Amino acid sequence: MSGHMTPEEFRRYGRQVVDWIADYQEKIESYPVLSRVRPGEVLEALPEHPPEHGEGFEAVLADLDRVIMPGVTHWQHPSYFAYFPANASGPAILGDLLSAGLGVQGMLWATSPACTELETRVTDWLAELLDLPAGFRSGGAGGGVIQDSASSAALVAVLAALRRADGGAAGREGITRRHTLYISSQTHSAMEKAAGIAGIGAGNVRTVDVDPATLAMDPAHLDALLAEDAAAGALPVLVCATVGTTSTTAVDPVAGIGEVCRRHGVWLHVDAAYAGVAAVCPELRWVNDGLAGNADSYATNPHKWLLTNFDCTVLWVADRAPLIGALSILPEYLRNQASASGEVIDYRDWQISLGRRFRALKLWSVIRWYGAEGLREHVRTGIRLAAGLASWIREDPAFELHDHHPFGLVCFRPRWDGLPDAEADAATLELMRRLNASGDLYLTHTKVGGRVLLRMAIGAPATGAEHVRAAWRRITEEAGAGA
Amino acid sequence: MSGHMTPEEFRRYGRQVVDWIADYQEKIESYPVLSRVRPGEVLEALPEHPPEHGEGFEAVLADLDRVIMPGVTHWQHPSYFAYFPANASGPAILGDLLSAGLGVQGMLWATSPACTELETRVTDWLAELLDLPAGFRSGGAGGGVIQDSASSAALVAVLAALRRADGGAAGREGITRRHTLYISSQTHSAMEKAAGIAGIGAGNVRTVDVDPATLAMDPAHLDALLAEDAAAGALPVLVCATVGTTSTTAVDPVAGIGEVCRRHGVWLHVDAAYAGVAAVCPELRWVNDGLAGNADSYATNPHKWLLTNFDCTVLWVADRAPLIGALSILPEYLRNQASASGEVIDYRDWQISLGRRFRALKLWSVIRWYGAEGLREHVRTGIRLAAGLASWIREDPAFELHDHHPFGLVCFRPRWDGLPDAEADAATLELMRRLNASGDLYLTHTKVGGRVLLRMAIGAPATGAEHVRAAWRRITEEAGAGA
Repeated sequence: MSGHMTPEEFRRYGRQVVDWIADYQEKIESYPVLSRVRPGEVLEALPEHPPEHGEGFEAVLADLDRVIMPGVTHWQHPSYFAYFPANASGPAILGDLLSAGLGVQGMLWATSPACTELETRVTDWLAELLDLPAGFRSGGAGGGVIQDSASSAALVAVLAALRRADGGAAGREGITRRHTLYISSQTHSAMEKAAGIAGIGAGNVRTVDVDPATLAMDPAHLDALLAEDAAAGALPVLVCATVGTTSTTAVDPVAGIGEVCRRHGVWLHVDAAYAGVAAVCPELRWVNDGLAGNADSYATNPHKWLLTNFDCTVLWVADRAPLIGALSILPEYLRNQASASGEVIDYRDWQISLGRRFRALKLWSVIRWYGAEGLREHVRTGIRLAAGLASWIREDPAFELHDHHPFGLVCFRPRWDGLPDAEADAATLELMRRLNASGDLYLTHTKVGGRVLLRMAIGAPATGAEHVRAAWRRITEEAGAGA
Repeated sequence: MSGHMTPEEFRRYGRQVVDWIADYQEKIESYPVLSRVRPGEVLEALPEHPPEHGEGFEAVLADLDRVIMPGVTHWQHPSYFAYFPANASGPAILGDLLSAGLGVQGMLWATSPACTELETRVTDWLAELLDLPAGFRSGGAGGGVIQDSASSAALVAVLAALRRADGGAAGREGITRRHTLYISSQTHSAMEKAAGIAGIGAGNVRTVDVDPATLAMDPAHLDALLAEDAAAGALPVLVCATVGTTSTTAVDPVAGIGEVCRRHGVWLHVDAAYAGVAAVCPELRWVNDGLAGNADSYATNPHKWLLTNFDCTVLWVADRAPLIGALSILPEYLRNQASASGEVIDYRDWQISLGRRFRALKLWSVIRWYGAEGLREHVRTGIRLAAGLASWIREDPAFELHDHHPFGLVCFRPRWDGLPDAEADAATLELMRRLNASGDLYLTHTKVGGRVLLRMAIGAPATGAEHVRAAWRRITEEAGAGA
């Protein structure tokens, strides 16, 4: 101990860790999905002071089982239905392990050309798998880049949009007039956060009306807001349309929104963080409707539903010039011949941070292991299971189904016949609390039209029909017991 | 193929990958340090289209050797002396592998309590190992958090500082007046980039003079600039002091700068990305001078010199309230009992993105494997090797040494006696080009006082005395050949 781990030690401990993970995969159903620890319990079980002398890796693995695992909520559990899935898969884990083993830093092309060029290739591959507009491929003015999350992609899109809108004035002199962004009540909170970060201000994020039934953004209201703001002297920067909202997977009318954006000369960012990857299936290519010729930037997360461990968001832009213009700074110590030649991509200029991991390896591993047909099968499984669940809910008179469920998310609530709305909502939340506390499954909630709905998001690789059936049985039992 | 990788397959392929990494560690010296591929070479060697059918993981490993490895610049090579080191280590790789295997998402305490609480513990541990001011520990008003990089830490610090300076006005209403930041010519470009991102504008980043000999920031000039800007109606937001600059590891006088900041009520961020971890050694604790009572935020990167694979920057704040105030947004779908209780930390409110990996596992693995004594030994090795190199340079009449080299970085240049400055600088860059092209070692350069210096950063875990000696021999030979 205390010295560097030798290659021989790495072989030995590496096998132990691989076996530990395989064992975990085999026994994951024996854990409660939601951790049962109370606040502070894990912290208290960890020594207050760091060790003076090094310890063997066996000690780490022992404490992992003893201290850490009780505090883990199992996102890969087949009965994990909370938020959206955060798919892990064997090939992604191993691709990520290769990245760690290589330990390279891809800030510049020169600092590991393969890190950059594999990223260019796999983002092009994914654009092809999803049948995205040709303009997003690297061969033309646009291109793709891996970001850590859709939040960062949203911020980067705002900065690129701002650059295009003002020619770089804000980047140089700061924001000096009112800038506006456009979202709906259903847009992910990351866009409001991005507005705060970028100095635009959350208060200048304008909320476009949605259709009360579909929860989709109203292009006519967007048009009116844009005209009103421009007339009042504001600089409209970006509109965010969402394909598959976090709350209920609502789908904004991208074509109609895009037409309004083009007319007003405003950047259209399309956030398809969860649902965009569904386009691997030809029958779901409608999720791309309206992108071509309209979307200036587009983001989807292979780390949600496409089997690639977090973090892996892919952001594409139709024109990389404003993106690079917004994010490039060149100090002397980063100058190099390859960058100066203009022949290479330096992805540091496509993101917030300078440093970057070799994340393309995991996406490459996933696409090669599964192939297009394996990816399609995974998405179709989630959709088939969700459709089955929705049919049971629809047929059960004690429950009300939220009608829109084209992907893996199903939203619903018990009717709690006779209870006033507020009490019914409290009963729904209490039902969720009991279900989650049981450890049998993990659900989250949302609000639609002021009413609480349960969200059951299907799509963990381990989830099969039996887990969805068991979850529905538990929900109906527990709702019956609570009624 | 095309289906999910079974636990048995994961065991088999996992062992192959572990062995591949161990083999790589054993034979890393057989590779040229800097990749020799030309732009586009890796891209062209990769299939233009993604596979329709899945392939075995053997195919990925075969192409890794055939296509990817020629395009890798080997950051873990013992003769890698470019930029700063990006240490990888066995325990860090395995800690990261465990994180990938668990596949949890730590955005909220509730989504995996251990992910949050282990992070709290290890950031406290690191604060203790470095003997940072008590106010940075989680027990009081402050605390630490793992960010992906010092760039993100810089941006987060700016946002927290802005929040404290204006009470949240910019976050709500956007930036409406001139805001200013204070750096020196030696500050990392991430701070200027952060100013652009935050809507403050790169043009409102004020450059404080440095002492021409030490390259350290001049507190008196800072004082004058702050007074001038405030009198002109600007809102000074943040001063960035650096301990160990990227160019030459210069050290700003934090105590003197802090005194000025306190007097003007301005946030002091201390960027010790590279050098901060040196404080694991008691004899190097001077790198913390002036932090106590002055620094509002402090960042250092275990992923540079402390054996923890990228990404792992630790950012500490003395008061977490403005940080959380700047970055917290609470949509319905993230509400949960634990967060509402106020008893837990939700680290999503301490960073740009919502999602977050379980990065604490790798830092925990590193601290436990090495222990405090192992970490100290690693830092001391780098410093000892750098001191040896500096002594040889000092004694060689053909070379000029940059006198300041307290850590692992040594800057120097051939004298090229008789050549005018511009030609000498060109000769230095050409020498660097030839050395790097040889594959024997990898150096980068900087400019000080307008003159080109070579930077040789020692600190890769594999680097021993023999590699530094061999590098110096190559440099002197090649400089002699080019003279």
